[in-house]
Amino acid sequence: MAAVAAETRWWRLLLVLSIAGLGAVGTPQPPNIVLMLMDDMGWGDLGVNGEPSRETPNLDRMAAEGMLFPSFYSANPLCSPSRAALLTGRLPIRNGFYTTNGHARNGYTPQDIVGGIPDSEHLLPELLKEAGYATKIVGKWHLGHRPQFHPLKHGFDEWFGSPNCHFGPYDNKAKPNIPVYRDWEMVGRFYEEFPINLKTGEANLTQIYLQEALDFIKKQHSRQRPFFLYWAIDATHGPVYASKPFLGSSRRGRYGDAVREIDDSVGQILQLLRGIGIAERTFVFFTSDNGAALVSAPKQAGSNGPFLCGKQTTFEGGVREPAIAWWPGHVPTGQVSYQLGSLMDLFTTSLSLAGLEPPSDRKIDGLDLLPTLLRGQLIDRPIFYYRGNELMAATVGQYKAHFWTWTNAWEEFRQGIDFCPGQNVSGVTTHTQVEHTSLPLLFHLGEDPGERYPLSFASAEYQDALRRITPVIQQHRETLVPGQPQLNVCNPAVMNWAPPGCEKLSKCLTPPESVPGKCSWPH
Amino acid sequence: MAAVAAETRWWRLLLVLSIAGLGAVGTPQPPNIVLMLMDDMGWGDLGVNGEPSRETPNLDRMAAEGMLFPSFYSANPLCSPSRAALLTGRLPIRNGFYTTNGHARNGYTPQDIVGGIPDSEHLLPELLKEAGYATKIVGKWHLGHRPQFHPLKHGFDEWFGSPNCHFGPYDNKAKPNIPVYRDWEMVGRFYEEFPINLKTGEANLTQIYLQEALDFIKKQHSRQRPFFLYWAIDATHGPVYASKPFLGSSRRGRYGDAVREIDDSVGQILQLLRGIGIAERTFVFFTSDNGAALVSAPKQAGSNGPFLCGKQTTFEGGVREPAIAWWPGHVPTGQVSYQLGSLMDLFTTSLSLAGLEPPSDRKIDGLDLLPTLLRGQLIDRPIFYYRGNELMAATVGQYKAHFWTWTNAWEEFRQGIDFCPGQNVSGVTTHTQVEHTSLPLLFHLGEDPGERYPLSFASAEYQDALRRITPVIQQHRETLVPGQPQLNVCNPAVMNWAPPGCEKLSKCLTPPESVPGKCSWPH
Repeated sequence: MAAVAAETRWWRLLLVLSIAGLGAVGTPQPPNIVLMLMDDMGWGDLGVNGEPSRETPNLDRMAAEGMLFPSFYSANPLCSPSRAALLTGRLPIRNGFYTTNGHARNGYTPQDIVGGIPDSEHLLPELLKEAGYATKIVGKWHLGHRPQFHPLKHGFDEWFGSPNCHFGPYDNKAKPNIPVYRDWEMVGRFYEEFPINLKTGEANLTQIYLQEALDFIKKQHSRQRPFFLYWAIDATHGPVYASKPFLGSSRRGRYGDAVREIDDSVGQILQLLRGIGIAERTFVFFTSDNGAALVSAPKQAGSNGPFLCGKQTTFEGGVREPAIAWWPGHVPTGQVSYQLGSLMDLFTTSLSLAGLEPPSDRKIDGLDLLPTLLRGQLIDRPIFYYRGNELMAATVGQYKAHFWTWTNAWEEFRQGIDFCPGQNVSGVTTHTQVEHTSLPLLFHLGEDPGERYPLSFASAEYQDALRRITPVIQQHRETLVPGQPQLNVCNPAVMNWAPPGCEKLSKCLTPPESVPGKCSWPH
Repeated sequence: MAAVAAETRWWRLLLVLSIAGLGAVGTPQPPNIVLMLMDDMGWGDLGVNGEPSRETPNLDRMAAEGMLFPSFYSANPLCSPSRAALLTGRLPIRNGFYTTNGHARNGYTPQDIVGGIPDSEHLLPELLKEAGYATKIVGKWHLGHRPQFHPLKHGFDEWFGSPNCHFGPYDNKAKPNIPVYRDWEMVGRFYEEFPINLKTGEANLTQIYLQEALDFIKKQHSRQRPFFLYWAIDATHGPVYASKPFLGSSRRGRYGDAVREIDDSVGQILQLLRGIGIAERTFVFFTSDNGAALVSAPKQAGSNGPFLCGKQTTFEGGVREPAIAWWPGHVPTGQVSYQLGSLMDLFTTSLSLAGLEPPSDRKIDGLDLLPTLLRGQLIDRPIFYYRGNELMAATVGQYKAHFWTWTNAWEEFRQGIDFCPGQNVSGVTTHTQVEHTSLPLLFHLGEDPGERYPLSFASAEYQDALRRITPVIQQHRETLVPGQPQLNVCNPAVMNWAPPGCEKLSKCLTPPESVPGKCSWPH
């Protein structure tokens, strides 16, 4: 670990060594950071990951020019906890983005959620600001929408986007439409000022988000300020959408149209970075928040390739993500890394790029991936798969152990809610919560990436693998200090009735009476 | 179709135009042809098709230098019929490589098969010899092993390999070990002179087959003769094997070791073609005979990526194949073609490369893909999916219709024989033979490549698609003239007891009494 810690001082070393081409004249700058986080995009949606229609030429080129991570994981199979983990470098069980309302339940931030990101958490943009970064979030925040959780209170200088998912349309009586913010104030609502046509799938949002990204990059470039852009766009989250030129352009239907528009946008952003000559000073990472939402397939969801199940589950399809690092001149081209990576690593790696140390007063789960990115070093580390308050599974080396299995309850399944459509592995894709703690189900993810063949309990391979996994789990459990659960309490009064700026637009709605209660998390 | 027919005279046009660099001094030659046919390798086994361990750098490079076909199909979900179709350009139902012993049964050429490739069929090497090609088969023949079916009687000048699968070891009493031939004569048997260690997985066969390929290429090059090499190697067919340097080298286990050795061998062959300066005069195509044999997964089988089921079935996993065309200077680099391709197209395309017309006295199913390969042209054509004597399914455009569904019988399934492990699509992966002729199950392969969501019968999309498919099927059925079924009769007396050359090796065995009977084809 000494080698890894040393790497966090990499940028300072760069300063000392005065490596050419990185700094502006006179004042050397740390690299710009662009994190592109997709919404419900699946591992299998990229051409480079084998999507048969191969409609992502720009992302495939990004991979060819950079480093592809086939074993990169979300910190959670659901959006809000996953995003909170990315920005804090910590598992949701630590940063509070989980619920104790039921065992092993996925919680997120719907409109009536009372909680959000605690002030006690240090977010990546907060820390990067200390190093002089200009920070912007474009797109979905999802870390709480009440005033104290506003992204500009947590380190972002600018915001264009929404606090919640673009579900709707709502009637603004029982439930308000989701606001769209520019910085501190609402500038309209989805389905109103920002239309999404559910029938045709047309919405201009990806184009708007693209323009926001391009403008921000140009502005900071002209100001010669290092920047952090968190580009959290959501066209691949149901209801999926695309702008007119992309509608009908895909062989994959409307979901594919959304992917094509995103791919085109990624291409434009990278092209801008090249065009204004800062590609070698800008670290870009492309990934997604959780697996494809197979429950909405095929019209409203993507592909998890050969992996088992999808979003909401702790099988590979729920948490293994498309992941590409791009930093011309630094990350060698055309590489594939076997490193087990995590969304949380983007926190620590970004700090390292900025020459910062991660907070030392708390457990940080994210690794600094620079040794991997710059020199192909492989770092041994586990991946933990949580569902709410339960450690469901863990990967150590190539072995994955399931301590609990569950997809969803029979009652839901019988209503047609299926997280593993067309897939059924006996004793694995269970519809009751089954505990395997004393004798975990083990899979070899190299031989069996689809988690279809549990190792025989009697085999030497099982025994060896378990001997390796057990102490890792034990150490994790023993040192774990869970945060205060933020996703327990819901209240219709806290919905987006009257966001700041609503007066100017005459769009303030009257909240109902405050009725706090337990949020319902069925799966 | 006029444009396509014109293309078959492409080579003659080349002669007239005297395109530089293709011909040797004085006598312009048609290009060499190398068909690399894998055994049970799955679509998902290639890095470029998204295999997560990404262990095929040479094949991935081949794709980057050539044209990748994500929608390329075998003519059958089983080896012998698939290989007969490749070499005749005709569906097994036409060339006789099927059985009528039961409805919709997969048949092949085990040791006791009486039939084989009929003399009335024109094989690709026969036709290429007419155009001056030197022809060689390396590896598995599988078109019948009785004397009249010998590959050197059907157009090949040379052979190194075996007539049947490398199953075994046998006791040479109830069943002989499979012979290995050099040209006309047996030079040993598997598990005897050609060892395969079932415990360690070690066998040197891929290295031998590689050397045979390299030697043949060098020899023909020095003779300035155009050559046709049919490289039908079998390390990925169970029992899978690899040579010592590759054993344990894969993250995917022994199956992956076999793939790595094959990938390395492909790299060496392409490197030789470059090295001796004939890459631009050699057309190379890499593909496989049928989908991965999931019934033997995970230790003895590969991956069909996101597709449904495997070998033996007419779902995509049974018949969609990895496919790469490579011809530097002619096939443009880095292309992906949406063309629906078939193994049978390699027959017609190879003839076209040689300046030959396909036989005009019979129906040829293979297309000339040169317009696609050279200019990216897309040719509208159906794909038919047969199982034995039954047309199970067909693809027209992006729509696939299933007229019959079947995986295998309940009795087999209950014994653990599972062609769709971990996969189960209600009403689709059926264990009884279910007819859907009057109302076929339809899938949109772009939106739903995994065949998990049949279109609603009531939808306009279903009606439109069916209207397009129906006349294609009708035309096919009405004009079909089935060949004499070759896979009906079995007889232990015809096994490889005393192949030619056995005397020299003192390896002649005594055949049992002749007891012809119906072959048993359970699925």
